[in-house]
Amino acid sequence: MEMNTLENVQESGVYDVAIVGAGPAGLSAALTLKIHNKKILWFGTSALSDKVEKSEKIANYAGCELISGKELNEIFRQQIHSAGLVLTDKKVTMISGDKDGYMILGDNDIYKAKTVLLAVGSVPAKGIDGEQELLGRGVSYCATCDGFLYRGKNIAVFCGHKRFEHEVEYLAQLAEKVYLYVSYPESEINLPNVEMLKKPMKAVRGENKVRAIELTDKTEKEVDGVFFLRPSVAPATLLNGLHMQGSHIEVNRQCETNFAGCFAAGDCTGRPYQIAKAVGEGNVAAHQIIAYLAAKDK
Amino acid sequence: MEMNTLENVQESGVYDVAIVGAGPAGLSAALTLKIHNKKILWFGTSALSDKVEKSEKIANYAGCELISGKELNEIFRQQIHSAGLVLTDKKVTMISGDKDGYMILGDNDIYKAKTVLLAVGSVPAKGIDGEQELLGRGVSYCATCDGFLYRGKNIAVFCGHKRFEHEVEYLAQLAEKVYLYVSYPESEINLPNVEMLKKPMKAVRGENKVRAIELTDKTEKEVDGVFFLRPSVAPATLLNGLHMQGSHIEVNRQCETNFAGCFAAGDCTGRPYQIAKAVGEGNVAAHQIIAYLAAKDK
Repeated sequence: MEMNTLENVQESGVYDVAIVGAGPAGLSAALTLKIHNKKILWFGTSALSDKVEKSEKIANYAGCELISGKELNEIFRQQIHSAGLVLTDKKVTMISGDKDGYMILGDNDIYKAKTVLLAVGSVPAKGIDGEQELLGRGVSYCATCDGFLYRGKNIAVFCGHKRFEHEVEYLAQLAEKVYLYVSYPESEINLPNVEMLKKPMKAVRGENKVRAIELTDKTEKEVDGVFFLRPSVAPATLLNGLHMQGSHIEVNRQCETNFAGCFAAGDCTGRPYQIAKAVGEGNVAAHQIIAYLAAKDK
Repeated sequence: MEMNTLENVQESGVYDVAIVGAGPAGLSAALTLKIHNKKILWFGTSALSDKVEKSEKIANYAGCELISGKELNEIFRQQIHSAGLVLTDKKVTMISGDKDGYMILGDNDIYKAKTVLLAVGSVPAKGIDGEQELLGRGVSYCATCDGFLYRGKNIAVFCGHKRFEHEVEYLAQLAEKVYLYVSYPESEINLPNVEMLKKPMKAVRGENKVRAIELTDKTEKEVDGVFFLRPSVAPATLLNGLHMQGSHIEVNRQCETNFAGCFAAGDCTGRPYQIAKAVGEGNVAAHQIIAYLAAKDK
């Protein structure tokens, strides 16, 4: 995965904050930061949180009586619209930076922000064996970024959500052969050069570059590249050096991570995985970001 | 302030949790604990949070678009009713206990609970000079509990909210003379033996018992007792030995205080003083209480 030229950075300017994730934590932070007139870059899809969407009944969120997740997401969307907030539907696959500012790679574009709020939901800590080690050496999280590298080659693809199926189709147009594993029941992909894997991948094999994938039944498939299409990239992969506690981002009561200017809120900081807790932390993080920016601008 | 006989304790039994405070933090915790079938004793008035009530517009609480505090409190009340939750309209003036359980004094009654959640809002750390030192020796927080001790005597009363005016009237029936200071604009008290103080109290004077009050203009009034009628008692006065950080209760990310089985959430644990933050912490505290009770019952 290569960072693009700096052209795009010049165009969009520097944001006060980049929020990664459009679940309850990201929304809560965005609402507060908007009131305080911060220049916000908010990554996420208008589908918002998939976990909220699938909640049949929510009975313990103060202010919203016995509501379905679908209804709550609809209220959230309306609130986003009314507040004049805008979602940037790009997948963030890399962040780098420090107290002087952050660079964020969203699909093929680079953005700059003074602070970052990670509100990426609960994400497996580090993927499967070999995934992190071979990232950028055959392992990719972004079809539109890296697909062209595999023209006429064999690849494996993990598809973690129906909404990534167009990316699978895009890859199938480029690659000679695609081994596909989907982690949800009703896949609609049916293409001649796509072979559905019955078993999930267990490991990525290869020394300095990807050579094969190993499935849970111990069979191997020779491939040149592997794409993991998941809603979120593991936080410590996203931002190298981020301190974790197991699969959660380590934060203090102010939602500060070990990177100055980088904050985290919601499920990614730990249990309970609850809307109320995410909304609370999004609010705390936003206030801390406001204070951080004020101190920086002094 | 004397703890009553143990009769009332036998009647009501032991609660899983006593929640002190009916603002957003208390509500959020109560909703979650109710779902988990915990036996809840919830102290607060149906007026709910005064601070919420007085918020003109709330623009950053996810799920409730541009709402007034009055409207939000009305939604909260409806939600309390629907969830089958009950508020006990008694003022908690003393808590004692440890990991083996807690005793809570609510007006004149004693209650027992395995755990306590303090959601008392932001409260001044320790009142005025001499207040804490002379508590129980002429200083009282409860008119109905201690009023009878001042029959025919002179007392001073601080009234912090209109809803305590009936307590002032009750005290005026007993005492010979009442020096009254009210901290809000439109007091309706007009009784022959009540003298309105123009200046607030600055200190309570006396060696082993109350002798006088000193006003901010340095004048003194000789009295036998002083009543502070405030929505909440300062946390460290409520529960002796509770660790504070300034005027806030010291908690970790799990909302645990230094007392095993005692948790805190909302404005009383620190800034930002926000509904979202309070709702989030109430949820976190509730989950921690559930885990604590489960570990205890093993």
